[in-house]
Amino acid sequence: MKGFQKLVSVDDALKTFFAELQIKPRKVSVPLISALGRVLAQEIVAFTDLPRTDRSAVDGYAVNADDTAGATQSKPRILKIIDTGTTGRRQAKQVWTGKPIPKHANAVVMLENTKLVKDKIEVGSSMTPWENVSKKGEDIRKGETAIRAGTRLKPQHLGLAAALGVGAVEVHKKPRIAILATGNELAELGSRLRRGQVLDVNRLVLTALCNELGVDTLDLGIAKDDVDEISRKIMLGLKKADAIITSGGTSVGGRDLVPEAINRTGKPGVIIHGVAIRPGMPTALAVVKGKPIIILPGNPVAAMLGFEVFGRPLVSRMLGLKQTESRHKLKARVTRRIATTLGRRNFVRVRVFSQNDEFLAEPISARGSSLISTMTKANGYVIVPENVEGLEEGEIITVQMFDNLEGIDHDV
Amino acid sequence: MKGFQKLVSVDDALKTFFAELQIKPRKVSVPLISALGRVLAQEIVAFTDLPRTDRSAVDGYAVNADDTAGATQSKPRILKIIDTGTTGRRQAKQVWTGKPIPKHANAVVMLENTKLVKDKIEVGSSMTPWENVSKKGEDIRKGETAIRAGTRLKPQHLGLAAALGVGAVEVHKKPRIAILATGNELAELGSRLRRGQVLDVNRLVLTALCNELGVDTLDLGIAKDDVDEISRKIMLGLKKADAIITSGGTSVGGRDLVPEAINRTGKPGVIIHGVAIRPGMPTALAVVKGKPIIILPGNPVAAMLGFEVFGRPLVSRMLGLKQTESRHKLKARVTRRIATTLGRRNFVRVRVFSQNDEFLAEPISARGSSLISTMTKANGYVIVPENVEGLEEGEIITVQMFDNLEGIDHDV
Repeated sequence: MKGFQKLVSVDDALKTFFAELQIKPRKVSVPLISALGRVLAQEIVAFTDLPRTDRSAVDGYAVNADDTAGATQSKPRILKIIDTGTTGRRQAKQVWTGKPIPKHANAVVMLENTKLVKDKIEVGSSMTPWENVSKKGEDIRKGETAIRAGTRLKPQHLGLAAALGVGAVEVHKKPRIAILATGNELAELGSRLRRGQVLDVNRLVLTALCNELGVDTLDLGIAKDDVDEISRKIMLGLKKADAIITSGGTSVGGRDLVPEAINRTGKPGVIIHGVAIRPGMPTALAVVKGKPIIILPGNPVAAMLGFEVFGRPLVSRMLGLKQTESRHKLKARVTRRIATTLGRRNFVRVRVFSQNDEFLAEPISARGSSLISTMTKANGYVIVPENVEGLEEGEIITVQMFDNLEGIDHDV
Repeated sequence: MKGFQKLVSVDDALKTFFAELQIKPRKVSVPLISALGRVLAQEIVAFTDLPRTDRSAVDGYAVNADDTAGATQSKPRILKIIDTGTTGRRQAKQVWTGKPIPKHANAVVMLENTKLVKDKIEVGSSMTPWENVSKKGEDIRKGETAIRAGTRLKPQHLGLAAALGVGAVEVHKKPRIAILATGNELAELGSRLRRGQVLDVNRLVLTALCNELGVDTLDLGIAKDDVDEISRKIMLGLKKADAIITSGGTSVGGRDLVPEAINRTGKPGVIIHGVAIRPGMPTALAVVKGKPIIILPGNPVAAMLGFEVFGRPLVSRMLGLKQTESRHKLKARVTRRIATTLGRRNFVRVRVFSQNDEFLAEPISARGSSLISTMTKANGYVIVPENVEGLEEGEIITVQMFDNLEGIDHDV
């Protein structure tokens, strides 16, 4: 019987894995309206100043600042309202936010700071030149990089690109990831269980984790604990997808069926087997025909966390992101001591909540690493490094949030 | 000329708005595989214990703890390996994580803590009853609520539901929100601009903000500054959608065309006009035929932040969420003082970054509230309450993140 004589550290595993891979996501052009959540594959450079002309930043009257010099509440300056494209001396033109200001005007008095008297306004304070004016190019200058390649496009990016007149953008093509579960004990969702059988939840969860990040998935189904059957499914995945994620069939002990099956399909095959991580120690990483394969344990919690550790960096690169898209982070105070295993990178699930204007993180029982309800009771996890033995009560730690502060089932 | 004599506070505006509305999202049944990101409309109650039977939490040997009493490294207990469904005295059965343990066994010795000698194992330490065993019902007990109604379904919720044998779930029907932009100066994206024209970015951005939250949108296009035209589009929106969001045509000064047009379409019409908020003061809220309408200013930054303040709570309720789905929050230290307007709720955009294991928030120029690039330079915003005059240097504040810590264009 073989154990993992020497576990590889998470960092070394990632380094070895990515050194074997050459990930070059392809590009595709999409209209801006369909680009939400996609990853930009080009630099967006401003080909115009924004604003294109000097414009008012407020609702009010465009004036020349000189005409307001020395104005006070008791000694207001009186300006005549006109409605042409150019203002003369002691003239003012009404403008709305965002509108170009007339020639010779260089400031805008806010509406609430004026008093309208027939066709004139009284201005009760002195303006400085360009006060309340958005100057041409102040938002962004022609030639400046507006959005960098590798950015995941959020509504605000679409807004900026649209303002610059961009109609379509080059984004990275979505990768397709094949998902395979293995195990004689697994039953399809919805089926009636016989004794010893369990429903296969990992395929659903891994598919959802991929979809959430914006990649397409291919369902390879369930393979029995049979090296031939697993090999055939892996071959299919290699043919039809850009990467494969499996769960089950890798363990501390004997039955490393998935690694064995993968090694049959091509070179270099499994390059990492056994990672100094908890949970998830039997995780393996493989590369076949240049395509990455992540082999996760069957334990659903270990599979989910394994996806965080190996799936996210891989998917981020395949999506063309500048860097791994981590979970949202926050800092919180630990409510009680919890022990972890020295020499392993530990993933402690926590429930973060707000109390007295402070974020507190309550560790969810470290026991039962395979209890799936711990993933819905928790809303984040803490990474405890290899050289640390646990979390101390009162310690401030960084949490990676996988659910909202508010979205805690058992807290409402 | 009419100003806003009295601005309504954000809290009062929201209270008045929701008091006029009766939001009852409808329900629809979807297979679990299609339920990612949807909002649960039923309680999911466990109709079985999970695990369904006592099972091993580790890879190892199932034993009876009594047989290991007093075992030490130097005086290990020797157990015979068997492969039946029941273990007898001084017998052990190899089990994998998640597998049922045999009858009469009540603990599992981890593989790495055993030594295999032919058909026997040596156990070098004493086990306590139920050590390394996930007991029946330990994950979740039959009859317990597993996932509450109003939960946005994340991968971990799908996993738990699947483990419980749930095949389809009742979720809330996606609401449809109509988006309208108004303004003579607006040009469709992709068109060639004449002097004084600007591209309409708000429709795209508001659509994206809605889509991001998982609601469908209906594009009502651009209406000219014409009360009849705006009314017609509002009528269409009321007919085809569950809510409307408009931008432009509401201002501190004269031209409140959109409120006027809405009041023509039905009762009660505009119920809030002018909110003590910065940016976004001319924001208005209306209800017609029981349907909500949010009237945002044309300034794209004010429109985006107005969506945060009024759109998110509305959309959250229409989606059937338990509470408003806020942005991810974190606490950060302010890098420099920034003034805000007393008596208004101010939204200060900040760029949060990590430095020396601390989160720092750098305010993005408060000036240029209409500069759309401030929304891509920032990755979050801070809410400064009405009774506070600004952010102090060194102060710890709560940031609502609308982009990743890492996803800062101008920081890489």
